[in-house]
Amino acid sequence: MEIPHPYHLFLGDVADRLGAKTGIGIVDWRREWCLGQLRLPGCKADAGISDMTVAEARAAGAKTFVIGCVNSGGSLPEHWVDTIIEAIESGMNVASGLHIRLSAVPGLADAARKAGVELFDVRHSSERFGTGTGAKRPGKRLLTVGTDCSVGKKYTVLALEKGMRDRGFDADFRATGQTGVFISGRGVSIDAVVADFISGAAEYLSPAADENHWDLVEGQGSLFHPAFAGVSMGLLHGSQPDAFVVCHEPTRTTMRAVQTPLPSVQQVIDLTILAGSVTNPDIRCVGISINTSALDDDEAKEFLARISADYDLPATDPVRYGVEVLVDRIETEFGK
Amino acid sequence: MEIPHPYHLFLGDVADRLGAKTGIGIVDWRREWCLGQLRLPGCKADAGISDMTVAEARAAGAKTFVIGCVNSGGSLPEHWVDTIIEAIESGMNVASGLHIRLSAVPGLADAARKAGVELFDVRHSSERFGTGTGAKRPGKRLLTVGTDCSVGKKYTVLALEKGMRDRGFDADFRATGQTGVFISGRGVSIDAVVADFISGAAEYLSPAADENHWDLVEGQGSLFHPAFAGVSMGLLHGSQPDAFVVCHEPTRTTMRAVQTPLPSVQQVIDLTILAGSVTNPDIRCVGISINTSALDDDEAKEFLARISADYDLPATDPVRYGVEVLVDRIETEFGK
Repeated sequence: MEIPHPYHLFLGDVADRLGAKTGIGIVDWRREWCLGQLRLPGCKADAGISDMTVAEARAAGAKTFVIGCVNSGGSLPEHWVDTIIEAIESGMNVASGLHIRLSAVPGLADAARKAGVELFDVRHSSERFGTGTGAKRPGKRLLTVGTDCSVGKKYTVLALEKGMRDRGFDADFRATGQTGVFISGRGVSIDAVVADFISGAAEYLSPAADENHWDLVEGQGSLFHPAFAGVSMGLLHGSQPDAFVVCHEPTRTTMRAVQTPLPSVQQVIDLTILAGSVTNPDIRCVGISINTSALDDDEAKEFLARISADYDLPATDPVRYGVEVLVDRIETEFGK
Repeated sequence: MEIPHPYHLFLGDVADRLGAKTGIGIVDWRREWCLGQLRLPGCKADAGISDMTVAEARAAGAKTFVIGCVNSGGSLPEHWVDTIIEAIESGMNVASGLHIRLSAVPGLADAARKAGVELFDVRHSSERFGTGTGAKRPGKRLLTVGTDCSVGKKYTVLALEKGMRDRGFDADFRATGQTGVFISGRGVSIDAVVADFISGAAEYLSPAADENHWDLVEGQGSLFHPAFAGVSMGLLHGSQPDAFVVCHEPTRTTMRAVQTPLPSVQQVIDLTILAGSVTNPDIRCVGISINTSALDDDEAKEFLARISADYDLPATDPVRYGVEVLVDRIETEFGK
């Protein structure tokens, strides 16, 4: 799957910034591929790029209309369809990370055929996976885990890819969600795999590699999230990480879209080691990644210093302060 | 989905008894629905009923040819196809619990159309699930969990359904695998659900009920199995069990189809309580179910007495000694 860029990002009328995290993530890591955004009336998200109509984006050279927003459950609201058809008729491909296939939405397949454009369903892999084996593979792996969904797991591995490569590591980002696949042009939307094959798909995603090669696997959900822990568990087993980084947003009290209280960083470390030991007895935590966007600079630094001391682990906000301290720790623990 | 019986059971040429556990399970719980079995040369399993050709079974009144065997990964070997087509052409429906849809196997859909019979894919629910909510539902729930796959989780809940009903409890078996669905005529093959919806499907499976009603949910896999723990985790969260029974086979040293060592019963109890507390803080273990088929009577009784004392929990082999001690404990802990 190779999705043509530049992109025109569709943010729908999502109720908050998290609802548009796909689009915002693409802009963060592939700003040069994004010509503009299209927001419907009532949209509460902003990817920070120019608002453009379909006609304007097309005139500027946009090749793919990317549905950069999600609603819980992954369906596609009917009132988005007209805009998507307008994009198709203008000559843009459409790419979506929703659970529902674009071709299953009445009208889209016909319009795409007529316009001679393609529909990309990033969540649906054409690959057939086996069940997991649990067998140890050569190469090193790092997985991000979290106290919740949407706490920076993808961001942290992307920042680590850049930071580790800058320091001479042989490291590759491995995408497990739609945004990551949009950003890297490959990967597996792990939450769209049939349940029996979650860990098998994760094994496929980070195959045997050179002993000093690092696969940096994008984590999903949380082992404590009542909707998504199954995905997190299978991904942990299949990734068999040597190292993991815990991602956390310190002002959140309940997990995303549910009323369940957030677990502590310690609970996540303990359960990740307990469960991860099944496929890698040497699994260890190498740091904590904090989304400090709700804190001012003094508060953020104080919070990071305290949590670092409490856990005797490096702690940083990759967006604000980089990932040097995490790369230092990886180099100390594993060499280069 | 209503699968017509009586059944003719196909056991293929599976390499061991576990490979035919679907067929054997159906015979165990619905003997009166099973006219005979069909085994290909080399088959190492035996469901303990008459061997019959397709023609003999059809003449005896068989309505559905049930593929009562699985191979790892759930595919359908090509050398089984001729026999299945023979069954279709004789006028039998075909029902399968394999991952692959019968209609996706070349030749089967055409043959079924010509013969005017139906193809049932028990693993593929037509139901669309939402993501899990983690919200507490009224009614009581019991889940069986295990140190491995194929250690008696289905058997134990089916025995508990009978035992609890005999003692006046309002209790229903909830099937989560193909055999259970064949036996109860309803349920969800939870390992065939898209990963994002595992716990949502489990929530659907045991909906809100009367406060004294028990849903007895068939467990799947093991939280320690490197291939299937994601399914086990989502099923645990979605089932929000008040009570669980640990199932174990004491002579096994590695888990089914992998080289991973078996966890201890204590490890399973601890992790089940830790993870299960996310959706039910009152979760507790009410007993241990041991598959003692590899032990003689004295050994079995001694083993059960010892493990019961070690864990301060009732322990039984439901096949050999019934489930009275488990029902006693449930009544003591929860009333009736």
